Amino acid sequence: MILSLFFIFSLIFASSSAAVQDFCVGDLALPYGPAGYSCKSPSKVTVDDFVFSGLGKAGNTSNLIKAAVTPAFAPQFPAVNGLGLSIARLDLAVEGVVPMHSHPGGSELLIVVQGCICAGFISSSDNKVYYKTLYSGDTMVFPQGLLHFQINSGNTAALAFVTFSSPSPGLQITAFALFGNNLPTELVERTTFLDEAEVKKLKAVLGGTG
Amino acid sequence: MILSLFFIFSLIFASSSAAVQDFCVGDLALPYGPAGYSCKSPSKVTVDDFVFSGLGKAGNTSNLIKAAVTPAFAPQFPAVNGLGLSIARLDLAVEGVVPMHSHPGGSELLIVVQGCICAGFISSSDNKVYYKTLYSGDTMVFPQGLLHFQINSGNTAALAFVTFSSPSPGLQITAFALFGNNLPTELVERTTFLDEAEVKKLKAVLGGTG
Amino acid sequence: MILSLFFIFSLIFASSSAAVQDFCVGDLALPYGPAGYSCKSPSKVTVDDFVFSGLGKAGNTSNLIKAAVTPAFAPQFPAVNGLGLSIARLDLAVEGVVPMHSHPGGSELLIVVQGCICAGFISSSDNKVYYKTLYSGDTMVFPQGLLHFQINSGNTAALAFVTFSSPSPGLQITAFALFGNNLPTELVERTTFLDEAEVKKLKAVLGGTG
Amino acid sequence: MILSLFFIFSLIFASSSAAVQDFCVGDLALPYGPAGYSCKSPSKVTVDDFVFSGLGKAGNTSNLIKAAVTPAFAPQFPAVNGLGLSIARLDLAVEGVVPMHSHPGGSELLIVVQGCICAGFISSSDNKVYYKTLYSGDTMVFPQGLLHFQINSGNTAALAFVTFSSPSPGLQITAFALFGNNLPTELVERTTFLDEAEVKKLKAVLGGTG
Amino acid sequence: MILSLFFIFSLIFASSSAAVQDFCVGDLALPYGPAGYSCKSPSKVTVDDFVFSGLGKAGNTSNLIKAAVTPAFAPQFPAVNGLGLSIARLDLAVEGVVPMHSHPGGSELLIVVQGCICAGFISSSDNKVYYKTLYSGDTMVFPQGLLHFQINSGNTAALAFVTFSSPSPGLQITAFALFGNNLPTELVERTTFLDEAEVKKLKAVLGGTG
Amino acid sequence: MILSLFFIFSLIFASSSAAVQDFCVGDLALPYGPAGYSCKSPSKVTVDDFVFSGLGKAGNTSNLIKAAVTPAFAPQFPAVNGLGLSIARLDLAVEGVVPMHSHPGGSELLIVVQGCICAGFISSSDNKVYYKTLYSGDTMVFPQGLLHFQINSGNTAALAFVTFSSPSPGLQITAFALFGNNLPTELVERTTFLDEAEVKKLKAVLGGTG
Repeated sequence: MILSLFFIFSLIFASSSAAVQDFCVGDLALPYGPAGYSCKSPSKVTVDDFVFSGLGKAGNTSNLIKAAVTPAFAPQFPAVNGLGLSIARLDLAVEGVVPMHSHPGGSELLIVVQGCICAGFISSSDNKVYYKTLYSGDTMVFPQGLLHFQINSGNTAALAFVTFSSPSPGLQITAFALFGNNLPTELVERTTFLDEAEVKKLKAVLGGTG
Repeated sequence: MILSLFFIFSLIFASSSAAVQDFCVGDLALPYGPAGYSCKSPSKVTVDDFVFSGLGKAGNTSNLIKAAVTPAFAPQFPAVNGLGLSIARLDLAVEGVVPMHSHPGGSELLIVVQGCICAGFISSSDNKVYYKTLYSGDTMVFPQGLLHFQINSGNTAALAFVTFSSPSPGLQITAFALFGNNLPTELVERTTFLDEAEVKKLKAVLGGTG
Repeated sequence: MILSLFFIFSLIFASSSAAVQDFCVGDLALPYGPAGYSCKSPSKVTVDDFVFSGLGKAGNTSNLIKAAVTPAFAPQFPAVNGLGLSIARLDLAVEGVVPMHSHPGGSELLIVVQGCICAGFISSSDNKVYYKTLYSGDTMVFPQGLLHFQINSGNTAALAFVTFSSPSPGLQITAFALFGNNLPTELVERTTFLDEAEVKKLKAVLGGTG
Repeated sequence: MILSLFFIFSLIFASSSAAVQDFCVGDLALPYGPAGYSCKSPSKVTVDDFVFSGLGKAGNTSNLIKAAVTPAFAPQFPAVNGLGLSIARLDLAVEGVVPMHSHPGGSELLIVVQGCICAGFISSSDNKVYYKTLYSGDTMVFPQGLLHFQINSGNTAALAFVTFSSPSPGLQITAFALFGNNLPTELVERTTFLDEAEVKKLKAVLGGTG
Repeated sequence: MILSLFFIFSLIFASSSAAVQDFCVGDLALPYGPAGYSCKSPSKVTVDDFVFSGLGKAGNTSNLIKAAVTPAFAPQFPAVNGLGLSIARLDLAVEGVVPMHSHPGGSELLIVVQGCICAGFISSSDNKVYYKTLYSGDTMVFPQGLLHFQINSGNTAALAFVTFSSPSPGLQITAFALFGNNLPTELVERTTFLDEAEVKKLKAVLGGTG
Repeated sequence: MILSLFFIFSLIFASSSAAVQDFCVGDLALPYGPAGYSCKSPSKVTVDDFVFSGLGKAGNTSNLIKAAVTPAFAPQFPAVNGLGLSIARLDLAVEGVVPMHSHPGGSELLIVVQGCICAGFISSSDNKVYYKTLYSGDTMVFPQGLLHFQINSGNTAALAFVTFSSPSPGLQITAFALFGNNLPTELVERTTFLDEAEVKKLKAVLGGTG
């Protein structure tokens, strides 16, 4: 009888090695497409694929922005591939800043775990700024694709987790996009209204050329 | 003139061997991803790919649950790959039961063809049970991911077809998930409120260990 | 203790009357949008909303095409609203035909329950015809938006169920679209290559004017 | 000149009061549909709509399961409406348990902030259990619709945040669904393989009848 | 300091060669699936991948329909792969016609750049014809999957661009689908109500057999 | 007989006034949600709803940026509601510029109709700039959410049409978002690395305060 039951389940579950797609742990060595990475063979998947331990340790904030973002996106944590969400750890030393940026591929939800953070975003429809100081336990949502920022507004290090509605939300930091590559100074000036001296100064700071 | 017309159509249709994606019959040997299987080369696709003949014959109901589910999901019927739907045949001998289960990946629509079936589901929002006896020609819809069941409530064998809003809806039978694997008895007890004796009894019946 | 447990569940489930969206039975009297109908208040939903009994009876095939399609789409069966699938009953008397048509909004899966049906579709990428005679228990899938047809190819009435990957798949019968309205004869001629006499004849048969 | 610039932006942004949909803060008093709540008028939206402060305080774990889930789903935090994600706080006292459950509408990502938690899920394709003990900073992902659980496996209270790939993921606790309503005892027995005594005992504990 | 900043960005951006999916320029040589082509390695992508120059030149309208459609769909312009849109150039000589057709995979938006075009579509829900003469600068939208047509209604050549809500919208020209392949004459007759002579005549014109 | 045929079609098409959703012309006066506007009653829809004539006339480029964008997005052209695409006209006088901006809700495809335009975007994954001078007939695609710009690089006025993969793509001009509102100068400085004088200068130019 039990064999019969197994027979049924076998018929349903096991008639193909690729069977049903409960999950699709990304295999970064295979071709990938618009929907994400190809799936690792289920027979090689273990519980360790579903656990990511890199967010337990503070990132190194000894840098220009006194901030560190440690992502668990699909490239770092392939188990989120195809599941529509991901997470990152955000460490902000005193005076730390996550500069103005946007995520092309998803909305963001931040929860403050330690310290206090001034966070805000700018709407595109009416160019209005929405910002507020958040304390431990406060959660704020940043709608997809809009410019936003986070600043440590307290006297102690701050810690937050940020989650996204995509396994690969992307991250475009405005200053880095404008001044950290070889986009010619003249084009930067004309498309941002900034003056030449400012553009050149920031190119020097952020590693840009041209 | 006709050549010219063909020229236009060629320009549109034939400039790539992968051309337009009318369909994507799954090739189970290629890598697959979150959106489904890779496509079989259209040049090798014939009408037989679009036809599945396995649902014409009753499944074997000589088993513990006196029921048989014969699926035509993407692994069995690769033509549904990427098309957002699939089907299965459900045979219920007298006293047959499809135990409490859910489909992680899609909603279900059942139509009774023969006999009568008591079917129901439980909502998550208010924990309410919706169940009813269905007769030949009756159709019932089971919203995505919710626990539901079907029982032959008549004196004759029952036959139904169940269709899904996904080519790979998945199927998780609660009892099998709880008692048919090596999830330690203590964890089952603590997460289900069942007592040890019951858990051990069902592990024995359903092939579980630990 | 049980009160406490209820308290938790209440917090989760009941803090809004609109709560979680397990389902969204359509309320045809409210505004509707691109994703479907507005939801009927869950407090007014009963099991009868999830059951549709109209497919148990043969449709009337005493008509030009000796066929009848009885739909359980969202307008007839509002419980499928938002769930991504629907169903219809197809009756074909001897010599019955479902004329060449397409569904703008979804793929179709047909299962023959009685009789035999010659069914086919035409791909857009290479203009190839895929057709076959189907017998009881055979299932065939018709990819979204492509022209297809079904003809009773046997000596007895045929019965099939057709399911769709959308609650509102739509149905555009080519002949009816071309000849059953006031599209001027000259425009029909020029866009179909048919001659005037043929267009006028079919307009007369199918109720068209102009 | 500035007026001219404003004129351009006005043309783009302001020609409709409903303008562009940067966000759609839910208005729980309006009709809602399969895609979520209707939007609150943008002119009434303030930064406070985007901030939820309810997750800073431990939930009350003085209950049967020594656990508390505090959700910030669309009904509680209407700013996540339409944005594809949500969050909840999970408090587990010593011996606390989130019983076996599933989310019909989304995948879950858990991050441990305090204590240690044994968490796991059961796949539907091969009925395999994936479970592990997680420590502070560990993140685990639970694919959509699959049964999973969390247990405090340490000697201190545990705290985690759980995020979802949907603003309304739903939550169906298996034991509560089976024993906490009026699903007749006989139907529970037949669909779960549990014996009558066990079903009646749990109905008594979990508030079920019938 | 700059090194530190680079370190952060490296951590985010560069920990995988497949990194974040800003875009997925199709690689037509790799396997492809329901969501589109596999992505070309970003390291081989240049600005030229994002630019398509084939729409600057009039198509050859010396053909039966005095029309030419030059597509920049995913097969011709792989940069649109996964981005949800595509474009084509439409040239209509005097008396040129784009015959009745539909796009199985997307909606269309046409903008007239030169000349005047009579364009229309037929709804499926009420079989109503919506058509109008469009002049330079006019835009018309054709909802997904519905039959529509365009005719040069002026005395000069007309030019339009047509864009689609899919990188691979497909194109099914009704007359070509009915008469340009080996679908047996009898099946065409029975599924279209056309008479045998007409079917045979058009099969001859459009290259059909059978 | 024709009555019978009509009876079938009536059964299918007309059993609900809201029938099948071929299209959903937005009614801006009704509630709207994450998927778009509510639908205008089909009985009030005419062909004029599907035609937008506002793109035939050059926008006024007598402004700071010597550019004009004339949108036909869902608020201006409600017929695109729910159809997944929209369009706008772009006029660039000599030296005209569309400043650095992004579209939170969709990808963009530009086609040059007149003049020449230097256009580019910046990837988020590797901060690389992709830019090129485009001539009449050239098409360029800008992936969703990424910063991009267009500049008239010729000696004559330029004209282009830009289409989007969303009926409401949004438009966030970086300089306007940073300097054209009341975001405090100090926050702008800290989140962009710009110095105070520059921020104040641009706030003055672009209408910002604080």
